[in-house]
Amino acid sequence: MQQAPNPPSSHPFFTLEKTSSSPSGRSRARAGSITTARGITIETPVFMPVGTRATVKTVPQEALIDELKAKIILANTYHLFLRPGPELVAELGGLHQMMSWPNAILTDSGGFQIFSLASLRKISEEGVRFRSHIDGQYHMLTPERAMEVQRALGADIVMAFDECPALPATYESMEKSVHLTARWARRSLSVPLASHQHFFAILQGGLFTDLRLRSLELLNESIHGLKRDVDGIAIGGLAVGESALERENLCQTLLPHLPSHKPRYLMGVGKPLDILEAIRHGIDMFDCVLPTRNARNGQALTTYGPMNLKNHSFRSDKAPLDPHCECKVCRRYTRAYIRHLCTTGEYLAGQLLTHHNLHFYLNLTRNARNAILEDRFDQFYDLFYQNYTQAKAYST
Amino acid sequence: MQQAPNPPSSHPFFTLEKTSSSPSGRSRARAGSITTARGITIETPVFMPVGTRATVKTVPQEALIDELKAKIILANTYHLFLRPGPELVAELGGLHQMMSWPNAILTDSGGFQIFSLASLRKISEEGVRFRSHIDGQYHMLTPERAMEVQRALGADIVMAFDECPALPATYESMEKSVHLTARWARRSLSVPLASHQHFFAILQGGLFTDLRLRSLELLNESIHGLKRDVDGIAIGGLAVGESALERENLCQTLLPHLPSHKPRYLMGVGKPLDILEAIRHGIDMFDCVLPTRNARNGQALTTYGPMNLKNHSFRSDKAPLDPHCECKVCRRYTRAYIRHLCTTGEYLAGQLLTHHNLHFYLNLTRNARNAILEDRFDQFYDLFYQNYTQAKAYST
Repeated sequence: MQQAPNPPSSHPFFTLEKTSSSPSGRSRARAGSITTARGITIETPVFMPVGTRATVKTVPQEALIDELKAKIILANTYHLFLRPGPELVAELGGLHQMMSWPNAILTDSGGFQIFSLASLRKISEEGVRFRSHIDGQYHMLTPERAMEVQRALGADIVMAFDECPALPATYESMEKSVHLTARWARRSLSVPLASHQHFFAILQGGLFTDLRLRSLELLNESIHGLKRDVDGIAIGGLAVGESALERENLCQTLLPHLPSHKPRYLMGVGKPLDILEAIRHGIDMFDCVLPTRNARNGQALTTYGPMNLKNHSFRSDKAPLDPHCECKVCRRYTRAYIRHLCTTGEYLAGQLLTHHNLHFYLNLTRNARNAILEDRFDQFYDLFYQNYTQAKAYST
Repeated sequence: MQQAPNPPSSHPFFTLEKTSSSPSGRSRARAGSITTARGITIETPVFMPVGTRATVKTVPQEALIDELKAKIILANTYHLFLRPGPELVAELGGLHQMMSWPNAILTDSGGFQIFSLASLRKISEEGVRFRSHIDGQYHMLTPERAMEVQRALGADIVMAFDECPALPATYESMEKSVHLTARWARRSLSVPLASHQHFFAILQGGLFTDLRLRSLELLNESIHGLKRDVDGIAIGGLAVGESALERENLCQTLLPHLPSHKPRYLMGVGKPLDILEAIRHGIDMFDCVLPTRNARNGQALTTYGPMNLKNHSFRSDKAPLDPHCECKVCRRYTRAYIRHLCTTGEYLAGQLLTHHNLHFYLNLTRNARNAILEDRFDQFYDLFYQNYTQAKAYST
């Protein structure tokens, strides 16, 4: 990863603004900013709301932009590949235009969903043949095809096509997967992208720390000599059931080996405390379905921990979801009302809880960033942790 | 209905501003305004979005207020009686405070839903015993109880408890129902309400014009001598499968007999052209689940008629739902995107279509009102009708 940065731009893609320097060496948290070729600036650490099928479930684009101030969302290549298909997205002017989204988009490569949703996967050196979970039709995704699809979708950041081995995986199968992922990274990176697109590679290796380091070495070897460099590094294959401690140990060992001038993206992680912890280790980017999916099941995230709004104890509670929250939901609605919406199965329940939860996540990363910039990340961490875990105040 | 208006207020409840005077005598359309005791002014003709369980499905209150400019919504006593129950609503400060809705609310009496949703109904002079459609529990609603429940809910306009006979009904059974409804109106009107609440009586009689007129006479006789007068008259028992012509004939005969100084509410009607037609005959208030329910099934209402967004023909259509519409959905999203959301079953589909459809309905009544005030209702009617029916342009 010593090649010149690309695509050429007057502004660097990633600027590292500050790294935490706690006296204890406890924190390596980073504040930085990503500027897309289209001129959108994303301050990091950043949480990317998940917009699987070109919509963040229940949240209209104007609310994401104007109220939640989301600068980047994630969309899933696998889902959009199947419906409406990359040709139609391209015909509609790309994802941004199709969904009327002026800010940034990151698309994954489809790898993870193939392994979690599709059936009858057949992996070869060439790629993966699989059956759609929607209609059972056969499809083939290769590194080349995954990049072509992502070029058609037109996201600002695209991901290498990687192999996510089924878990639990033996050391041997994980090692094989790490090698294949490195070869696929080279093939992915060799495919021309649109001039505005940036490219992230993905490291695999499960919880085997040495394989994670090997994955990084193999990536560097594999892409050596290519015209184009990777713009960021993602850690894939986590958030699949490992413990927080296992993930933490891995981050602690792996992250110091990553180049400091590229953004680091921890895919699919996680709960609020997982994100806080990963920020402490130096992760810059996150995505997770938790704030949106759990919202639709009646869960609100608050300063004092998660809260299950279906619980009887909220039936006449006139407080807002989180008294410390300034989102539009907390400014207007009570727990009692949202509980009524939850227990009667009303659409508005999921809408209000999703909005609030996304605000909570986006605020978590924004506040962490401010704390890093102001040299008080350790205090921020401690206070957030203490509040969030303090009382198990709410039945979840 | 010769008693003094009540409750005492510095402003009359209903002001008739203008009645159409087309040279042909073709239109008796009225423009007026209702001012609630809490000071909300509702310009008529008005469409009331249906907020069955204290939420207009998929639309947050702030959007109804700020974007759709809805001044009054309807909520269903039957549903709120069962969940969360009138005691809890009262404990939460009434419907307005519970749902954070500063504008006006009308609640129905529960009669219609008992007859359409509950099972094992047993009607007596006393009231109706029925089983909840949710958990099978037995409940009893009487005119007195229905009013007490509506007092607890705290709506600005409450409805008399009426009997909606099962259809098809014989003349004899309908006649019986008309008599019972008149006796129940007296009992309803005898129950003290909160000082801010206004009361509407309901006329029944199905499609038998003479029974409708009889229903009005019986109501007047029945409530004679009471301290309190009715503040408005509703026509119930329609929108149950009758033809537009049958409904039109009924309106044409019945409406000239209604007092001109009270608002007239045609319950549950209807499609856009049904509403336009009823406005022509002199109806002031409407409610209907069509714009919200059909939205959730993929239907958009447009200047040129209804449009089924699931239709293949919209797959790459970059036009807004309705090129003549200025709602926030039409300003941002394309038919192709909304079709994608519909075909993938995304929440946002129903949200966007509901918002647009409510805008369409609220605009229809607003535009009709302006046309009445400007002495051009016939032209407005003709143009709307011509556009809406012109081409069957869209597959529905």
